Amino acid sequence: MERSSRKKRTAYRLEDIAERFGGRVLGNADTTIEQIATLESAQAEHITFLASSKYRAQLATTRAGAVIVSEADAGASQLPRIVCDNPYTYFAKVSTFLNPPAQTLPGIHHSAVIEDGAQIDPTAHIGPHVAIGAGARIGARSVIMAGCSIGAGVSIGEDARLYPRVVVYHDCVLGNRLIAHSGVVIGADGFGIAMDEGSWLKIPQIGRVVIGDDVEIGANTTIDRGALDDTVIEDGVKLDNQIQVAHNVRIGAHTAIAGCVGIAGSTTIGHHCRIGGSAGILGHLHIADHVEISSFTLIGKSIRESGSYTGIYPFSKNEEWRNNAAHLRHLGELADKVKALQQEIEVLKRKD
Amino acid sequence: MERSSRKKRTAYRLEDIAERFGGRVLGNADTTIEQIATLESAQAEHITFLASSKYRAQLATTRAGAVIVSEADAGASQLPRIVCDNPYTYFAKVSTFLNPPAQTLPGIHHSAVIEDGAQIDPTAHIGPHVAIGAGARIGARSVIMAGCSIGAGVSIGEDARLYPRVVVYHDCVLGNRLIAHSGVVIGADGFGIAMDEGSWLKIPQIGRVVIGDDVEIGANTTIDRGALDDTVIEDGVKLDNQIQVAHNVRIGAHTAIAGCVGIAGSTTIGHHCRIGGSAGILGHLHIADHVEISSFTLIGKSIRESGSYTGIYPFSKNEEWRNNAAHLRHLGELADKVKALQQEIEVLKRKD
Amino acid sequence: MERSSRKKRTAYRLEDIAERFGGRVLGNADTTIEQIATLESAQAEHITFLASSKYRAQLATTRAGAVIVSEADAGASQLPRIVCDNPYTYFAKVSTFLNPPAQTLPGIHHSAVIEDGAQIDPTAHIGPHVAIGAGARIGARSVIMAGCSIGAGVSIGEDARLYPRVVVYHDCVLGNRLIAHSGVVIGADGFGIAMDEGSWLKIPQIGRVVIGDDVEIGANTTIDRGALDDTVIEDGVKLDNQIQVAHNVRIGAHTAIAGCVGIAGSTTIGHHCRIGGSAGILGHLHIADHVEISSFTLIGKSIRESGSYTGIYPFSKNEEWRNNAAHLRHLGELADKVKALQQEIEVLKRKD
Repeated sequence: MERSSRKKRTAYRLEDIAERFGGRVLGNADTTIEQIATLESAQAEHITFLASSKYRAQLATTRAGAVIVSEADAGASQLPRIVCDNPYTYFAKVSTFLNPPAQTLPGIHHSAVIEDGAQIDPTAHIGPHVAIGAGARIGARSVIMAGCSIGAGVSIGEDARLYPRVVVYHDCVLGNRLIAHSGVVIGADGFGIAMDEGSWLKIPQIGRVVIGDDVEIGANTTIDRGALDDTVIEDGVKLDNQIQVAHNVRIGAHTAIAGCVGIAGSTTIGHHCRIGGSAGILGHLHIADHVEISSFTLIGKSIRESGSYTGIYPFSKNEEWRNNAAHLRHLGELADKVKALQQEIEVLKRKD
Repeated sequence: MERSSRKKRTAYRLEDIAERFGGRVLGNADTTIEQIATLESAQAEHITFLASSKYRAQLATTRAGAVIVSEADAGASQLPRIVCDNPYTYFAKVSTFLNPPAQTLPGIHHSAVIEDGAQIDPTAHIGPHVAIGAGARIGARSVIMAGCSIGAGVSIGEDARLYPRVVVYHDCVLGNRLIAHSGVVIGADGFGIAMDEGSWLKIPQIGRVVIGDDVEIGANTTIDRGALDDTVIEDGVKLDNQIQVAHNVRIGAHTAIAGCVGIAGSTTIGHHCRIGGSAGILGHLHIADHVEISSFTLIGKSIRESGSYTGIYPFSKNEEWRNNAAHLRHLGELADKVKALQQEIEVLKRKD
Repeated sequence: MERSSRKKRTAYRLEDIAERFGGRVLGNADTTIEQIATLESAQAEHITFLASSKYRAQLATTRAGAVIVSEADAGASQLPRIVCDNPYTYFAKVSTFLNPPAQTLPGIHHSAVIEDGAQIDPTAHIGPHVAIGAGARIGARSVIMAGCSIGAGVSIGEDARLYPRVVVYHDCVLGNRLIAHSGVVIGADGFGIAMDEGSWLKIPQIGRVVIGDDVEIGANTTIDRGALDDTVIEDGVKLDNQIQVAHNVRIGAHTAIAGCVGIAGSTTIGHHCRIGGSAGILGHLHIADHVEISSFTLIGKSIRESGSYTGIYPFSKNEEWRNNAAHLRHLGELADKVKALQQEIEVLKRKD
């Protein structure tokens, strides 16, 4: 189980930070900071950051001990500061340094149930009430927290971190440094059914889920196993909470997908795509690399070209929406009327 | 584990009910009822209710022993009845009285794993296969059912009720009388990533989730911890199933949100709002108090004024939809054509 | 826990297959196959299938040992083949035959917690860390995998299969051959609340969930118990992942629903319907039998007639969408303008 993070903290000098992560220090380089915080919440022991010049007003009133700024904002504060190319990325690195994941002790909790032939690295941590199936392999330093269920024949890489109550079905392959949050289900049966005389036959789902390195999967996200071939999540993919990835989907490397997205079966998504929350992608499509899809947009055909795509119904006050939406159901007729008007005007003009 | 509710029931006289919850009895005040039921299903031992006059026809045929009606419907039945201001609210109160939550015995199940320094009130119930982290605190009469995982440093108030398999990550703060249904995940990492030379860096999520009193959270709903500051759910908020609340969201008191809604990061929602199912709210927005958002509506900018807002694409038969939707992609052109026609007509009228 | 499927396989002759499932063999009927695979992945020991003539090109290059084809495609390959009426259904049957569910041993794992009065058939399998409430009944050959929580008074039929971490609340009734994937929550409280002087009162949810035979429920799907009467899932219904079924919904027999769909309270759906992913259906509606609803479509009123229904906002490139969507908010005005133009033209034509 993860340790509480409310503990005594170490102090670092700005100079130490800049030595480690680059950038140059302006102001007192001996200023020490212990933690990172927002412009509004920061106190003297905190370093904060200005991700965009539009927050300059808040910079004026922050009580932070130091700040990370871009070259463009180097003069926007008199606080001790680190000037760098990309304050947001710099912040990510400093925060990661100041907030390492909670340490867990190696070993298998006595309440865990390990079936025959499972190979668990001695440096791995297996929490209480975990169940691990026959022949599963857990790599070095991986952490399997309370109540996880790891199916038979599953392979988990090194330095993986499965939060409580993650389920991995049999034979799936998970890469190094995977982070899977609570409630994630990897490898459940895809939705494969065939109609037969008024009833549905279930189609066995005999593919696996294969996940690359450095993937993170948000809480309660589900990734189904393939029907015949595998479902594949490539390296560096980041999935938010409550995403549904259907069978035989392939998600390209370093693609990031926000919460509540649904991706239907056998669709291939390129690398470095960004997909907004609650979007949907129908099945058997191909999405090119570097495609951005807006929140709440359904992609109903393949996208061959990188770029940004949207299909959102704009909201408005109820009465206004009702007035406009009614006409939407007659848009074809409206277009026909306009065409007819154009022709009539042509006739009138010619007569004129 | 919750006890089955199929047990011998106590009978109450209408007079007893009216004494307790107000209203006046018409007909035989000694009529006894044991349970509440719908107009269609009620039998002699049941009291039913007429929430709206539009169900009067069903009132004529109900086999209920008694009925709760409004003043307006006081004469709509000859059954023994309680007349009150708001039959639906009255029904809620009577049903709560007749159906108290299943009782659980205080104590810690022998299969639960409690880490050092956890403070569990002796009147609390800790079910089988629960894991409770170091330094966590569980308040009086709180019930933590089978397989829950409570992280280190978590604080849970009094009379809370966590159904089986709820996960709370470290350091989160949960108020009194919280109800969290199965599969709820509180405090998983928010979706914080920064692009760095073609790969995503993870941004540690060091805020908490802080939940007020009298909150209910539906099955498989997820509430992410804050990136730096906290995610906050105020008193009396009611969340349905499968809702996604991203990091640093704040939901105002007594707001009710239906199932499958997604709320993106750092958005603030006012108090007493009502949000329909599968709606979405983008990040960094402010929604005023007393705002109603329709189901399936994406809110893409802040709402400063209370009122009802909608953005739903009206459905129709496939062919009809296809015919209309095709024109939607040329709506700008259509508007241009109409403008051109207006100008041409002006020319023609002037010539005329 | 499910056994790994990577094991030594049995070989079957095409003749054996055709004898069992019908169809006629063309080519060498003694050809043996061990597994089924896609056209692209199949090797000599595999049988593949041509579900549609449009994949004929792939058939030319497959390395499969045999293929299942329709009469129309009987001559499309020289491979040993089985010719049948519906290759996709035939494939489903062959795959089911070749890939029986992993066997589990009868018996109760020592770490499971069984409350008093639970009746567990001696042929049932109860996995590690399972909790079963008082008076629950588990039928013959049913498999309850690791960490499931079965509430008091629950009844589960024969040959059911609950994957790890399924939760069933008290008193629900589940039919024969149910498959429930991990993270499924059956019988959590419906979202029943009544406003009372600025706060929400909770309405006790005293109905049950009643599920027929041959139902499959995907990972992390939630089905709420009824408020007063029951929520009902009829025989043969197939639900994909992350579906939300609210209280008092009734889903008719053999209806199939894709992932991420939300169905609001008290709605009745007919039999043999097909509902696409991320669709939504508002509450208190009636959907006829044999209705198809497209993905991402909100159904906001009852559908009395079978047929296909859609309401999807078509996506386009961002700029194009922005240009069109802006006009959508003035569609009523545009329609008014067209009407005015028509009248003006009438005037001009009359003058002419």
